[in-house]
Amino acid sequence: MGKKIKLGILGGGGDSLIGVLHRVASQINDNYEIVGAVFNPDFEANVAFAKEIDIPTNRIYKDFDTLVEEELKLPKEERIQVCSVLTPNFLHFPMAKKLLENGFHVICEKPMTTTYEEAVILQDTLEKAKTVFAVTHTYTGYPMVRQMREMIKAGALGKIHKVDAQYYQGWINTIIHDKAKRSTVWRLDPKKAGISSCMGDIGVHAFNMIEYTTGLKIKSILADFNYLYEDNQMDVDGTVLIRMDKHVKGLVRASQVATGEENGLSIAIYGEKAGLRWEQENPNYLYVLSDDKPAQVYKPGHAYNSDLSLDGTKLPPGHPEGIFDSMANIYLGVARAIRGEEYNDGEFPTMMDGVRGLDFIESSVESNKKGNVWVDLK
Amino acid sequence: MGKKIKLGILGGGGDSLIGVLHRVASQINDNYEIVGAVFNPDFEANVAFAKEIDIPTNRIYKDFDTLVEEELKLPKEERIQVCSVLTPNFLHFPMAKKLLENGFHVICEKPMTTTYEEAVILQDTLEKAKTVFAVTHTYTGYPMVRQMREMIKAGALGKIHKVDAQYYQGWINTIIHDKAKRSTVWRLDPKKAGISSCMGDIGVHAFNMIEYTTGLKIKSILADFNYLYEDNQMDVDGTVLIRMDKHVKGLVRASQVATGEENGLSIAIYGEKAGLRWEQENPNYLYVLSDDKPAQVYKPGHAYNSDLSLDGTKLPPGHPEGIFDSMANIYLGVARAIRGEEYNDGEFPTMMDGVRGLDFIESSVESNKKGNVWVDLK
Amino acid sequence: MGKKIKLGILGGGGDSLIGVLHRVASQINDNYEIVGAVFNPDFEANVAFAKEIDIPTNRIYKDFDTLVEEELKLPKEERIQVCSVLTPNFLHFPMAKKLLENGFHVICEKPMTTTYEEAVILQDTLEKAKTVFAVTHTYTGYPMVRQMREMIKAGALGKIHKVDAQYYQGWINTIIHDKAKRSTVWRLDPKKAGISSCMGDIGVHAFNMIEYTTGLKIKSILADFNYLYEDNQMDVDGTVLIRMDKHVKGLVRASQVATGEENGLSIAIYGEKAGLRWEQENPNYLYVLSDDKPAQVYKPGHAYNSDLSLDGTKLPPGHPEGIFDSMANIYLGVARAIRGEEYNDGEFPTMMDGVRGLDFIESSVESNKKGNVWVDLK
Amino acid sequence: MGKKIKLGILGGGGDSLIGVLHRVASQINDNYEIVGAVFNPDFEANVAFAKEIDIPTNRIYKDFDTLVEEELKLPKEERIQVCSVLTPNFLHFPMAKKLLENGFHVICEKPMTTTYEEAVILQDTLEKAKTVFAVTHTYTGYPMVRQMREMIKAGALGKIHKVDAQYYQGWINTIIHDKAKRSTVWRLDPKKAGISSCMGDIGVHAFNMIEYTTGLKIKSILADFNYLYEDNQMDVDGTVLIRMDKHVKGLVRASQVATGEENGLSIAIYGEKAGLRWEQENPNYLYVLSDDKPAQVYKPGHAYNSDLSLDGTKLPPGHPEGIFDSMANIYLGVARAIRGEEYNDGEFPTMMDGVRGLDFIESSVESNKKGNVWVDLK
Repeated sequence: MGKKIKLGILGGGGDSLIGVLHRVASQINDNYEIVGAVFNPDFEANVAFAKEIDIPTNRIYKDFDTLVEEELKLPKEERIQVCSVLTPNFLHFPMAKKLLENGFHVICEKPMTTTYEEAVILQDTLEKAKTVFAVTHTYTGYPMVRQMREMIKAGALGKIHKVDAQYYQGWINTIIHDKAKRSTVWRLDPKKAGISSCMGDIGVHAFNMIEYTTGLKIKSILADFNYLYEDNQMDVDGTVLIRMDKHVKGLVRASQVATGEENGLSIAIYGEKAGLRWEQENPNYLYVLSDDKPAQVYKPGHAYNSDLSLDGTKLPPGHPEGIFDSMANIYLGVARAIRGEEYNDGEFPTMMDGVRGLDFIESSVESNKKGNVWVDLK
Repeated sequence: MGKKIKLGILGGGGDSLIGVLHRVASQINDNYEIVGAVFNPDFEANVAFAKEIDIPTNRIYKDFDTLVEEELKLPKEERIQVCSVLTPNFLHFPMAKKLLENGFHVICEKPMTTTYEEAVILQDTLEKAKTVFAVTHTYTGYPMVRQMREMIKAGALGKIHKVDAQYYQGWINTIIHDKAKRSTVWRLDPKKAGISSCMGDIGVHAFNMIEYTTGLKIKSILADFNYLYEDNQMDVDGTVLIRMDKHVKGLVRASQVATGEENGLSIAIYGEKAGLRWEQENPNYLYVLSDDKPAQVYKPGHAYNSDLSLDGTKLPPGHPEGIFDSMANIYLGVARAIRGEEYNDGEFPTMMDGVRGLDFIESSVESNKKGNVWVDLK
Repeated sequence: MGKKIKLGILGGGGDSLIGVLHRVASQINDNYEIVGAVFNPDFEANVAFAKEIDIPTNRIYKDFDTLVEEELKLPKEERIQVCSVLTPNFLHFPMAKKLLENGFHVICEKPMTTTYEEAVILQDTLEKAKTVFAVTHTYTGYPMVRQMREMIKAGALGKIHKVDAQYYQGWINTIIHDKAKRSTVWRLDPKKAGISSCMGDIGVHAFNMIEYTTGLKIKSILADFNYLYEDNQMDVDGTVLIRMDKHVKGLVRASQVATGEENGLSIAIYGEKAGLRWEQENPNYLYVLSDDKPAQVYKPGHAYNSDLSLDGTKLPPGHPEGIFDSMANIYLGVARAIRGEEYNDGEFPTMMDGVRGLDFIESSVESNKKGNVWVDLK
Repeated sequence: MGKKIKLGILGGGGDSLIGVLHRVASQINDNYEIVGAVFNPDFEANVAFAKEIDIPTNRIYKDFDTLVEEELKLPKEERIQVCSVLTPNFLHFPMAKKLLENGFHVICEKPMTTTYEEAVILQDTLEKAKTVFAVTHTYTGYPMVRQMREMIKAGALGKIHKVDAQYYQGWINTIIHDKAKRSTVWRLDPKKAGISSCMGDIGVHAFNMIEYTTGLKIKSILADFNYLYEDNQMDVDGTVLIRMDKHVKGLVRASQVATGEENGLSIAIYGEKAGLRWEQENPNYLYVLSDDKPAQVYKPGHAYNSDLSLDGTKLPPGHPEGIFDSMANIYLGVARAIRGEEYNDGEFPTMMDGVRGLDFIESSVESNKKGNVWVDLK
């Protein structure tokens, strides 16, 4: 065939959420096929997982170095073109570097590296490699986030007054108060997670969102981190004041102990002409605020959006993209039924649902035609 | 190989939205591979589309009958196991019938057939065929819809008092007031769309949602349809009063001229012990109402949900499933870059975003460590 | 003095909610003073209540007839000008009739009478009396309801397609399932409450809202009522299909057993050019929907609203009118303190709050001036 | 009579919003009667306004000193007991001080004084006076704010992790970009408004809300203020990092240039056991968040609330307190009609609305009784 881009996957095996996310995303626009992988450092688990998701096992390699070595032996038209790096954070740098040095494109999970020093080295490597390199700050793919960027670029806000980005989660609350847990979870161990927990894991998304949407660079910051226990000094919460280009001020607020918050990423940007508000948990609603006109609610898929925003929208307005997943659940139930596996009778609509639907439609028409009288379904 | 179910596609070519939806959904849980298709009645367009989405063309057939004939010649382990029927409504019945008669499983778009009579015939066919047959009432795949069903089954509402389901859209408003348009659009032509527009296309989803969630059957209905122009008597709006098992009353409200509504499917179910409210445009929020306790907001992915609800959830709480699509947009941008196509610099985060992220994290730590002082980014 | 209108009150004593509502409302715009009343059929309770709310007792009468008789003896400039009729439903008619016949203006709670026959008689009486008569369909006083009316009058919706009004409450759910309770509560006894519970008490508000906002008359209806127990046939839920002037269709949905709903009055009106949605529980948000433009959120107090809407708004945008009540709670706490009654230290902000506020402001300025350093509060 | 507390008003004449707010609030719980005032420094305007709102003019004084002097001559049972100080900020201190020194209770608008130094002097004065003194941090009167305080006091959150209070308004955006306007508006002139605009006017409310709800004291702060123009250095935006008792951290975010924000006061408090979120623009919704249970939505008036919260609630659940205002608008229309002034036919429901309501109810019953048939209204 040859139209699809040949994709290799590093990490993301088993029930890794980031693995699911990358695999699904790579398939949605019919652009990629997975041709090789090292899902897991354990080779047997690696092959087993490949079988489980039905990927040919002949290019499932025992480790990353072997993958590079073997793929380079293949003719260019068969070779992996791009690798998704989904491994633990400390492996991002050596893998990405070697991939670039060998001419591969790279899609790298964030954080790109564990230190700024490594990041700069990688940047140099990329300049020589001249391949494509993407860091998956996923949230910039949302249609309404792209719409914010384009509106600001087009001057809809005028001079920007203030930027306020939040990323509040609560999940570390379930860990932090237990001394044994908090001293063992990798996320709170600076050796494994890097020098920052909250700011490094999620604050950085809010930072990126600010630069992505405003097109401005943050030049200077003042941080105040929050620790709950003396015996664990990793930040689980914090505020960072920021100063940007053009004298714009703002702040990043992030927390992993905002109890009950799930994935509370949001941004508010206020300018001379308008204000913008968006939140990740309701990603299809972009509020455009004005002092003297009614607030407007922008939604994806409408012609009034920018090209960049529309580019990311496949379904008509009113369908949250979760519809893909809803349909996928039905396909999942059908797959179980076809394979003779056990399934619940609520997993997919059966022919009986179809029959009843027709009965409903015809009976409705009959009731209406007869002057709005009661009609029994069959 | 062999783990994935072999899927055939009928219809859904080109930029068909329903085609996109089924293809993506079939891939999300790693269960299906598309091995054959008749995307389009025009053979050249058919092959061209297969190439565009990178599906092997050797099993792209010139028409449906050929597909059935040729597939039956293949050894059973290579043969299409299940077909998704995405063709115009009037073709659902003959295709589904023939597929069943030849031992194929079927995933059929709704409406399953154009008449109740056909539906009953198909039901007989299925009884003999003993294969799997699903009608894609997509909305029943949402985790919180499944949660409603399971809560009601478990008695959380007690005796049900009232069911009120709504499906309000506005899109026909852009067509109906133009005489030329309303007399040519297939949806408003009873010969092409069946005997009902609004109730047949969307009211039936609300009907299905009621029966799915409550587990009760609607026994009797009284309908009042709404037409806007004398020269076009297809219902574009209407209300159907319903009477269900166990003396439960309720109603279905549907409209295609509810101007400004996008895909306003929602349901409210009130019982002796609690009330439930859910709306498709914000599918992750299920409100559980009480007379004497605070309302509760159920969300997907939490352990407090039923197994059936959790089965459909791949990501942790707080991630709207649209996250798949957001990530997919980033993969799309990367694909364009790899192919050397034109792309916008906002389409995917680059290494520079990664570098700046590290700079932010390290500078935050430094500012905090030094006692909350300003630190310049590099 | 003499600028304020002299108001008499019939009923509404003790902790009657409707009594509170009318007394407060009569005072908000500095237009009325209460000069006479029969709060209670028991004279002692009547006088006691007048003292409790600090109204002069010399014009607290033993019964309604005495009130009319005695007031008529007073010189016209001292006499009650208008009476608020807040008594049980069956007394509305005889009281209103006698008041009109004696030249009084009347503000009457709804339902105005218990039968249509009485209503027509009252109408005749009013025509002769030529005084002012108002029925308190309270919801028409909301600024955004008035805005809907004015927008529709000005043609913002064009031809109306559909009107859908809902009034869902759940409170009878706490009564209906107990046989003893449901057979004794006055609301479910047709002799006391009139021929309808749900439609008569709340459906009629939805009906009024439709006629008020659209300016159209409902000409014909089809009703389906819902009873939960054979031994109590009063409707506690129901749907009424409606046909209006200009061939507009719609419906009224009402329930008193919509478990967990509090006071869920809402209306949606869809027309050729736009749609409108409003709900009483969030009365400051009017959604103006369009097929091709972002939805707009109208809020009270902005210059873009109609005069009729602005007339009802005393506070700047963003202050829910509940701010009156919030301030009133503080005055209540202060009153208790002044009277030496017991009160909670959270009932009103004390001077210490004032001191700390100044400390905060001055310390903030100091911290900012010194280059964003930590400053201790005193 | 004598049950009502005798209230004097200083300032708040004409169309002063704060004047309306205090007058209405003082009347809502039947506790106060206004017996004296200096609404305006201009005596004629002062008397005219008293007449306009129908307050006896014999105790309308030419200035504050006269008010104090004359009132002291009255017998104690007739004398003003409490004065509401609604004058420009710089007058709060001298007036409050003199009132306290002469034995009056005081209700003082915020800021209590213009400097911390004055505040401390006033505190000393109060200690000697032993009267009641309230600063009107109005927002602490909301039922759900009181509920937050009581829940935290009862330990519902456990150890508090983080407090985040916001007060975003946009109104100065309409002034700040015009050099002439920004150099003349009193709010941006430090001589008239005090040393801070944004933090002094609204940030201090957020500060107070934090201390009120958590019961903790803020001990140390770090501020970053935002100015938009070099020629006007008053803060119109800013962030204040805070450190509280028990090592709790948090922040106050405030802005007067958050374009399109109306009165965006909100607070989020996260603790070990739960999180709380509340916003002033939707004051009836208190979200109680949990990591492992569905979020709960607390609303006013329910028995599950604390006594302090219920104390402030007069109406049943589901009635936003704005209902008072809605009813008041209807009374306003009736007043105009009674006085023979011009009014719009949408200002109050007339008898015709009452007649139609009865027609609707009776017709509904008839339609239902006859088996759900169409019935024409009369």
